[in-house]
Amino acid sequence: MANIKDRIKIEMLSTGDEVLYGQIIDTNAAWLSDFLFQEGIIITSRHTVGDNLSTLIDTLQERSLQNDILIVNGGLGPTSDDLSAQAAALANNESLVLHEEWLKSLERYFLNRGRAMPASNIKQAMLPQSATLIDNPIGTACGFKMKVNNCLLFFTPGVPSEFKQMIKNEILPEIKLNYPLTDSKLCYRLTTMGRTESDLAQEIDAILEIPENITIGYRAAMPIIELKATGPESQRSEMDKLWQQIKSIVNANLLYEGVLNELDESGLAHVVSKLLHDKNQSVVIIEQQSAGIISYQLLEADAPVIKSEIVPLLLDDPSSYFTKLLKEQGANIAIGIINFQEKNSQFTLIIATLKKVLHFNLKYIGRSQSKRTQQQVLAAIALDGLRRYLLDMPIIGANVWLEVME
Amino acid sequence: MANIKDRIKIEMLSTGDEVLYGQIIDTNAAWLSDFLFQEGIIITSRHTVGDNLSTLIDTLQERSLQNDILIVNGGLGPTSDDLSAQAAALANNESLVLHEEWLKSLERYFLNRGRAMPASNIKQAMLPQSATLIDNPIGTACGFKMKVNNCLLFFTPGVPSEFKQMIKNEILPEIKLNYPLTDSKLCYRLTTMGRTESDLAQEIDAILEIPENITIGYRAAMPIIELKATGPESQRSEMDKLWQQIKSIVNANLLYEGVLNELDESGLAHVVSKLLHDKNQSVVIIEQQSAGIISYQLLEADAPVIKSEIVPLLLDDPSSYFTKLLKEQGANIAIGIINFQEKNSQFTLIIATLKKVLHFNLKYIGRSQSKRTQQQVLAAIALDGLRRYLLDMPIIGANVWLEVME
Repeated sequence: MANIKDRIKIEMLSTGDEVLYGQIIDTNAAWLSDFLFQEGIIITSRHTVGDNLSTLIDTLQERSLQNDILIVNGGLGPTSDDLSAQAAALANNESLVLHEEWLKSLERYFLNRGRAMPASNIKQAMLPQSATLIDNPIGTACGFKMKVNNCLLFFTPGVPSEFKQMIKNEILPEIKLNYPLTDSKLCYRLTTMGRTESDLAQEIDAILEIPENITIGYRAAMPIIELKATGPESQRSEMDKLWQQIKSIVNANLLYEGVLNELDESGLAHVVSKLLHDKNQSVVIIEQQSAGIISYQLLEADAPVIKSEIVPLLLDDPSSYFTKLLKEQGANIAIGIINFQEKNSQFTLIIATLKKVLHFNLKYIGRSQSKRTQQQVLAAIALDGLRRYLLDMPIIGANVWLEVME
Repeated sequence: MANIKDRIKIEMLSTGDEVLYGQIIDTNAAWLSDFLFQEGIIITSRHTVGDNLSTLIDTLQERSLQNDILIVNGGLGPTSDDLSAQAAALANNESLVLHEEWLKSLERYFLNRGRAMPASNIKQAMLPQSATLIDNPIGTACGFKMKVNNCLLFFTPGVPSEFKQMIKNEILPEIKLNYPLTDSKLCYRLTTMGRTESDLAQEIDAILEIPENITIGYRAAMPIIELKATGPESQRSEMDKLWQQIKSIVNANLLYEGVLNELDESGLAHVVSKLLHDKNQSVVIIEQQSAGIISYQLLEADAPVIKSEIVPLLLDDPSSYFTKLLKEQGANIAIGIINFQEKNSQFTLIIATLKKVLHFNLKYIGRSQSKRTQQQVLAAIALDGLRRYLLDMPIIGANVWLEVME
């Protein structure tokens, strides 16, 4: 009888100089880990190498000895630096053979677009002898699977839409066949603003008894901290109890619970957008130092934004500027952060309606940050201010990085 | 006599659930590869694992057998999911010992900030017995180095500013001591817009004889394609000759040569900003579908932007809207892309001065893209239009994705 291993090792192997040298961000890696996690499958590791044939061959050999399943991404294009199929063949001492079936698909693909197939694309129909083709209904790079050193390798295209479709439709079902039934994972998340990661962690470690098998993780994207508890489905009642305790600890800084959009980069904007729609309020936005980030996040969250302005210079009379734009555009609320002063990190948050203009002189007292981070912090303060305004809460919440001036 | 290996293997080991599961982007990895490349040192691979003690121990063992130098990043913080020092000690069968020297630094760090050191930070002064401390003058996580299986391991903090400073000041000099003198690399780059990667690659492969040791790489960030030739310093004359030939092939689509900013994400905006300053022209920007991306890129490139507006709704009379803003703000040029229609991907590019309003009805004819990519494409078309306007070139260049309407 076969020996069932307690943990299947699945690695993603990302290929390409532009990924190794960080010229592009490996969004496929992020997506894959998250997608498989939701399906109860845990990626154990990720490995990245460049476009070098001998390195690729060595890596396929070595990583196939270390893993049960290897998902290889990239290197299936038509150009001379796309080497995955060739490396796979050489790693297994095989030759490349022409897959007539895929060649026909390629010719059809170009015909449908009113073009002849460029000769360079023939390469995309050449697969290692032992490989089985995996269909790509939306692109020219087919995938394939094969065994090397008893590890199951899936080769996938680098284009994100093609990669995702192939993983969902073709590869996930195969992985499930090879993956033992496991206790599926529960994952609870919440998002806070205004405290540091170590400060939160220390309070939680000190007060709570965290059961074994349950892990608490933190993710900081200044000034937002996401807190996550992960544990087995079988410990749901312990998880629920712990989660209530955690929520009471973070209560003053809680922005929202759960995940609001795929990568959760602008969850706060989604919360604000929903509040604006629910309360039937429209906004105009005025930005300076944040250079459009508040507007971009709210627009992407489909908030009722009537108009947005970026005014690079300091405003002499901000209150009347806000009120004027509010009237001109017939909006309910004007919101913005303006007049940021480099020398002392002071700035003004304004939330204006036709009835009143709320005006806060604030000072950022956290450690110095990159300009981009500083912009993210200002945008988050504005969005949180608007959230609090809409919820009838004090506009400035508990926040270790902010001092209220005057 | 020692046997000198022809290639030193250097791997970066990124740790952390949030990196493995793609919740944060591994910007340290991108930065490190690029920084070392500029110094003539090539990272051979990158490996990523999560915050699991036994996986970390196994990985340190295994990767130290495969490499000469391992740069480990992350897991040095004060919280319970920071496990790097503990894993390093266990991988080498050592215990953790308190470094009094670093404990004093920590106490000083907190004292200077008017706080007592939280107890959880003591952990950051516990290092494996054989480790040598590496100073971190700006944070609480010291680095350290040690040998495992004859591989030299450097442990570094995850906070980007601390990581970069430690690599530059402490680790680079040590790597150089361990790295054989190599022929340093030449890397030429140029950036194009309006052709696809495979189209460019096919023409170049067909026309040019690429010498061995010289590699041509492509990086596509829709709609921008960067082309890069890399080869040894000793082949400079072949490189120069090849580069001239490549430039004559891409000429109609060339945006600029070289690297304009660190990650080159908005090189085009930097080109436009420089032209605006050189010609003493100021701009106002009006955006709709691009939701502020044109403005953000130009502002970040320090362009003379007087004001920027994002108008979510279609404009009835765009010409007069642009002219009005131009006059009100006393700018020289009003630029923007507006009235994007989802149903047919048509939109209008306007470049207006007080003398004339240039008005182009365009249609995007590339394949369908994510909304973010679509926004990037529109922003690039606007920026390239402005660049061409400032250079007295036809506003719409050779572009396989664009059709001029009417």
